[in-house]
Amino acid sequence: MSRKVAVIGDGHVGETVAHHLVVAGLVDKLVLFDLNEGKVKADAIDFKDAMANLPHHVEVTYNDYAELADTDIIVSALGNIKLQDNPDNDRFAELPYTSQQVKAVAKQIKAAGFHGKLVVITNPVDVITMLYQEGTGLPKEHVIGTGTLLDSARMKHAVAEVLDLDPRSVVGYNLGEHGNSQFTAWSTVRVLGKPITEIAAEKGLDLVDLDKKAREGGFEVFYGKKYTSYGIATAAVRLVETIFSDAHSELPVSNYVAEYGLYLSYPAIVGADGILARVPLNLTDEELAKLQVSADYIKTKFEESNAK
Amino acid sequence: MSRKVAVIGDGHVGETVAHHLVVAGLVDKLVLFDLNEGKVKADAIDFKDAMANLPHHVEVTYNDYAELADTDIIVSALGNIKLQDNPDNDRFAELPYTSQQVKAVAKQIKAAGFHGKLVVITNPVDVITMLYQEGTGLPKEHVIGTGTLLDSARMKHAVAEVLDLDPRSVVGYNLGEHGNSQFTAWSTVRVLGKPITEIAAEKGLDLVDLDKKAREGGFEVFYGKKYTSYGIATAAVRLVETIFSDAHSELPVSNYVAEYGLYLSYPAIVGADGILARVPLNLTDEELAKLQVSADYIKTKFEESNAK
Amino acid sequence: MSRKVAVIGDGHVGETVAHHLVVAGLVDKLVLFDLNEGKVKADAIDFKDAMANLPHHVEVTYNDYAELADTDIIVSALGNIKLQDNPDNDRFAELPYTSQQVKAVAKQIKAAGFHGKLVVITNPVDVITMLYQEGTGLPKEHVIGTGTLLDSARMKHAVAEVLDLDPRSVVGYNLGEHGNSQFTAWSTVRVLGKPITEIAAEKGLDLVDLDKKAREGGFEVFYGKKYTSYGIATAAVRLVETIFSDAHSELPVSNYVAEYGLYLSYPAIVGADGILARVPLNLTDEELAKLQVSADYIKTKFEESNAK
Amino acid sequence: MSRKVAVIGDGHVGETVAHHLVVAGLVDKLVLFDLNEGKVKADAIDFKDAMANLPHHVEVTYNDYAELADTDIIVSALGNIKLQDNPDNDRFAELPYTSQQVKAVAKQIKAAGFHGKLVVITNPVDVITMLYQEGTGLPKEHVIGTGTLLDSARMKHAVAEVLDLDPRSVVGYNLGEHGNSQFTAWSTVRVLGKPITEIAAEKGLDLVDLDKKAREGGFEVFYGKKYTSYGIATAAVRLVETIFSDAHSELPVSNYVAEYGLYLSYPAIVGADGILARVPLNLTDEELAKLQVSADYIKTKFEESNAK
Repeated sequence: MSRKVAVIGDGHVGETVAHHLVVAGLVDKLVLFDLNEGKVKADAIDFKDAMANLPHHVEVTYNDYAELADTDIIVSALGNIKLQDNPDNDRFAELPYTSQQVKAVAKQIKAAGFHGKLVVITNPVDVITMLYQEGTGLPKEHVIGTGTLLDSARMKHAVAEVLDLDPRSVVGYNLGEHGNSQFTAWSTVRVLGKPITEIAAEKGLDLVDLDKKAREGGFEVFYGKKYTSYGIATAAVRLVETIFSDAHSELPVSNYVAEYGLYLSYPAIVGADGILARVPLNLTDEELAKLQVSADYIKTKFEESNAK
Repeated sequence: MSRKVAVIGDGHVGETVAHHLVVAGLVDKLVLFDLNEGKVKADAIDFKDAMANLPHHVEVTYNDYAELADTDIIVSALGNIKLQDNPDNDRFAELPYTSQQVKAVAKQIKAAGFHGKLVVITNPVDVITMLYQEGTGLPKEHVIGTGTLLDSARMKHAVAEVLDLDPRSVVGYNLGEHGNSQFTAWSTVRVLGKPITEIAAEKGLDLVDLDKKAREGGFEVFYGKKYTSYGIATAAVRLVETIFSDAHSELPVSNYVAEYGLYLSYPAIVGADGILARVPLNLTDEELAKLQVSADYIKTKFEESNAK
Repeated sequence: MSRKVAVIGDGHVGETVAHHLVVAGLVDKLVLFDLNEGKVKADAIDFKDAMANLPHHVEVTYNDYAELADTDIIVSALGNIKLQDNPDNDRFAELPYTSQQVKAVAKQIKAAGFHGKLVVITNPVDVITMLYQEGTGLPKEHVIGTGTLLDSARMKHAVAEVLDLDPRSVVGYNLGEHGNSQFTAWSTVRVLGKPITEIAAEKGLDLVDLDKKAREGGFEVFYGKKYTSYGIATAAVRLVETIFSDAHSELPVSNYVAEYGLYLSYPAIVGADGILARVPLNLTDEELAKLQVSADYIKTKFEESNAK
Repeated sequence: MSRKVAVIGDGHVGETVAHHLVVAGLVDKLVLFDLNEGKVKADAIDFKDAMANLPHHVEVTYNDYAELADTDIIVSALGNIKLQDNPDNDRFAELPYTSQQVKAVAKQIKAAGFHGKLVVITNPVDVITMLYQEGTGLPKEHVIGTGTLLDSARMKHAVAEVLDLDPRSVVGYNLGEHGNSQFTAWSTVRVLGKPITEIAAEKGLDLVDLDKKAREGGFEVFYGKKYTSYGIATAAVRLVETIFSDAHSELPVSNYVAEYGLYLSYPAIVGADGILARVPLNLTDEELAKLQVSADYIKTKFEESNAK
């Protein structure tokens, strides 16, 4: 009965997820959480001040863990904006902060009796998703990181822009760690009815350049406003919609991959029961090597974070 | 052909309007403007990074005044967040800044050949709406301030909360200057099929208290996050939708009232041609006196701002 | 978790409710029921043929009562189109057919373990809603007829048209039996900030005429296409949305009124728990007399239908 | 300014397109046309009876060709339901009727000064699209048939069902005449990150069988309700949205293909300016042969229809 979502972390990303869910009429109940009680209360009241002028109604509450007992989906968007702003754009700079926070939050989620699906945006997302799964004791298939769903969207934007196309008309994936070691698996990318490698040859496109452009787009957003929000929030909202509607959509998200013994981004089928299956790809040797590098990096970082 | 909106001022309010319009699929083309080129460019790219995961497409551009020639609706959300944070919550503290900005922007709007409708959020909204109308030379009916559409929503929220109702089930208006002199015209407020004065008597509600509560809600939002965004942005989006769909809706917005010779909030019928008519109310003498106070205040401030 | 609706009766009205719910993205799961297995299966397949081109996913199944065990809201739209077409536009002509059908359906709903909310469109709606409540044993507050929510919308349309307004800017109710004895409670109708009686005097409107016009609109739809669908389906969808979002909206729907010992249309507060409260109006003596006539008529018809 | 659509032909398909556009808030103005004045007027009134309960406003008018002067998109859904019901499911059975109708309608469209985009559903769609283009004198790129956008959706539904997937996760096209000679170009179909031929081999799927299943789905809809509506209407609505938002989406629609000198379905890039480009595919020889058969068939039928 009805759709209930909790957003943990009411910073730039969490508030954007919340705003999207409310104004697009995608949820019936929304629970916001933040350590900054003044901010989260302000947002809850501000949403209520919007209700008389909105076409649908949403019940908004905040900082009440008891609400999680019957929450369907939690979106974790907590982070530390100061640590995000580091010279190398290293998402692991946040790890010492977020890993501690997440361990504490996971305990509260578990104590509240939450038994829904957990969508993780918090960075470094692959390590954090694993920490959430361990901390909450939820089935591995019920804890999903947004992973390279955003990087894939950025790649599609870059490809679409150079070809003057709708990004939704580009197919393909970025894979691996949602961080500096992620990569576009060009062997999976197709556009205009052909592999992009063919199109690139026809039109004289440089894929290395396109890849760079996609990454730089993200950096330009970050440098321009000191955070990124719309792209990542929309990726999380898409996951939320996919879960509610049990759509069985194929999405590149961070999910537990047994071969590597960790979470990383690889296409999976997503539905109401979380990760329903993974989609085995025929990657090139070069791509497999890049994936291994990503996996190794995540493993090292996970062990570091857990050692503490 | 298609719906094209420009948002001028990409701060907390402008970005929230833009995000609402994009994720709810309400526009086809969006043009963002801000003096901070890094920020506005970042937002434009960030929106493009969202497109692959959104169900609809929006073309987002920025800082290009030429786009205004065929823009249907401009939303002015520019402001100065530092001046907003003053001890008396005085929206006129921004006037020296915003009045100068708006005069410059109005010139550019005019030069670009804009001939659509202008929705003004920028504070102090009644004076600024008038400055925009004068500066652009647009018909008075085509320049509209969000005015007390937000205050009315806050009043409805307060009334609805105490009666455990949907705010959309509360009818009535706040009137006057969108600032400290605005007031709830309780004679216009109805709920549960009766005048609120009757309901208040039945249920022992104190209307003065409710009024205070509605105002304090706004302050609490402001103190909690140093700005307000969702309530005001939703009011502006509602105006945008009303104009596009030519809905002929009755809304309390800032419109030119000939008796007073200025813009202030009073219910009007809004459609594709802007303000179609005003809705003459049977206000009480007390309410009329309050309205006069509001009007006098706006007049003084307008003259001050124009004197410079 | 997710929104699940069943529509019983896949004729003109039921199919329109289903189509609205699917294309507006308002449900996650939809179960269609009809005695005409070919039709209902065709609609289910046709919806699946739409999914690749829709922005959201809906799981559509049909004629499976087991699905009702976890269905949130059932909409009853069954009817007999041949009986609807009678010279006096008498909705009771369908009663011999629908009352028998509904008794059978109610048993199956009960047997399936349904424990959600039941929204009734089937005519004559007030009697049928009562039969559903009795037959399913659901709490009286969980069984709601669309009642005069449609008649009120028609009245708003008529009022809005003559005043060149948005129908959503008209407040007020039609009350009583959703049939020939329903009436506009003009004492509750307000528009342009005033009672409609005042506006009518000002503008020379004839309310009796307006009332006639609103009714005739319905007849004209019926004579033009031999059924009505968009108006009534939208009323039902609004009820569905109000229940899912727990909006606590004030709506004129058919609900159990203890004074009369039966279901008839009178404003109530509607939320996730169905009818939360009734809204006592200050009706005029004339209106009260009309309401009594309506109630008496429903009572007689209900007794007739139950005697069989 | 605003989105204005006309739907010509208010039968099962036209009314479903109209209902979708209205309830999903996709248009601001809607003009309905039908030879059956009673029906089209009934639908217009019925929509107005829905407005008070809808979250957005749409202005609905009917049978007024003057409205076409500033209409953005016309959707032609006229047809003859009696001729559709023939033993061989031959869409050309309608041609004698629709070709004459369309010639007359095209004249009126032209006379009205329409200069927007024309989306054609009317069957046999490829021939009719060409007749519309000739009759209206609109640029070839501005007249588009829904073509195999529906067949492709049916194929995606069939593929998705057997693999338990979201149809939106299936990529690929049906090509050629939207009729009995259309075919799935399996060389273009990809799912689960691979060509479907590989997946079929892995999972033991029979593509001939899948193709049959997709076609039979359409027949089952037709036999079950004597028309098809949701699938085809959603395809048309998707085209409408793509045009309004200038999305540059790749869609298999009926467009003018110079090599063949006629309209047939082949992927194209669609935006506000209609068909922006075609997408040259690497079809197999067998597929090319099938396409030629389709083209020859359309040519013959077009010549027949024009000879009269």
